[in-house]
Amino acid sequence: MVPAPLPQQLADLSDLVGRMCTHAAGSLQSATAALLECRERLALQVIAREPELDALRVETEELARDALLFHQPVAGDLRSVVSTLRSAGDIDRMNRLALHVAEAVQRRHPAPTLPPEVRDDFAEMGRVAVALAVKAADVVRSRNVVRAIELDHDDDAMDVLHRRMFEVLMDPHWPHGVATAVDVTLLARYYERFADHAVAVARETVYAVTGEEPDAIPI
Amino acid sequence: MVPAPLPQQLADLSDLVGRMCTHAAGSLQSATAALLECRERLALQVIAREPELDALRVETEELARDALLFHQPVAGDLRSVVSTLRSAGDIDRMNRLALHVAEAVQRRHPAPTLPPEVRDDFAEMGRVAVALAVKAADVVRSRNVVRAIELDHDDDAMDVLHRRMFEVLMDPHWPHGVATAVDVTLLARYYERFADHAVAVARETVYAVTGEEPDAIPI
Repeated sequence: MVPAPLPQQLADLSDLVGRMCTHAAGSLQSATAALLECRERLALQVIAREPELDALRVETEELARDALLFHQPVAGDLRSVVSTLRSAGDIDRMNRLALHVAEAVQRRHPAPTLPPEVRDDFAEMGRVAVALAVKAADVVRSRNVVRAIELDHDDDAMDVLHRRMFEVLMDPHWPHGVATAVDVTLLARYYERFADHAVAVARETVYAVTGEEPDAIPI
Repeated sequence: MVPAPLPQQLADLSDLVGRMCTHAAGSLQSATAALLECRERLALQVIAREPELDALRVETEELARDALLFHQPVAGDLRSVVSTLRSAGDIDRMNRLALHVAEAVQRRHPAPTLPPEVRDDFAEMGRVAVALAVKAADVVRSRNVVRAIELDHDDDAMDVLHRRMFEVLMDPHWPHGVATAVDVTLLARYYERFADHAVAVARETVYAVTGEEPDAIPI
């Protein structure tokens, strides 16, 4: 089979990574709805869709290797391929974190997983995390560095929510006992990590476009 | 500057990734000692050594890109470079998790972070996680697929310890309150994730040597 020209392969790679990111956003959106509304069937749907993301990841990695193998890209093109490989790992992790949320819903069903005190905070964490993933998908497709750098600031909202969750848990009058606190602790961590990986995906685009290592950019 | 020949660059890459992995193992070993013995100064030493790992990661990624750029590797050589890039991300994460343990010690000092009931379990989780990282470093250097596959079984011990920790926390007679339970929950998760990333590093070597995607190998 004749490989596609490099610009076409790079465009296909961006599209695949963008689709992975959109998929992860969708997983977390559904998992959050399942969490807030105790909807076991919705949680099971999230879990059942895992193979779709695995297939996208395999396709992405195969195409990235083909691009390296057939076109020996240099400079910005090489960075694009390398950043694709790294982003695919981050997005895979995002989707697994969404699955962890869905699995927690399934495990506790029919009991609600969340106590009422933290329900609104989780609704907000879900909103922020999904918005970050949707924006990261847009950054991957548009290669818009300005929007990529915005994500780092957007993530501050998640950090505030995550810290507030611990204040709620540390309240000496927390009435729900240790088991619920453990669930809430882990769930909050899943959202925080999901958001962090979305920021990492956007930073990969910064690296691909500018050649600056994501960690070296003062954002 | 004339780039080194590809076999030399690949050997240097294995060595760098092996050193990163050994560094992460050392970080977690020290952080665990600090955790078990309430040694704040040791925790601070772990935190202070973070830039060393960052430098190794930057060096690894630059060398990987040079190898792609100057030698356009194919087949197994290409897989080796790609697996290096992925492993570097996993090991960076391992080291950050070790730092999280050290930061928890620092945050609670001079109070002990762990209640006595879980001290032995954390000593064992530390031992298992450090052994996995040391073995992963050896796999990276030796490219020994049999030892790589062993890691997946070694990790079962961590899963057992991690599950037991939740049983301890869920005991209705848990006497240490919610704040301590939250700390223990997160710390246990750090060890479990550290071990998981070490297994991922070993799987990357399997991929590099055999061409099988890590997830496709029945281990």
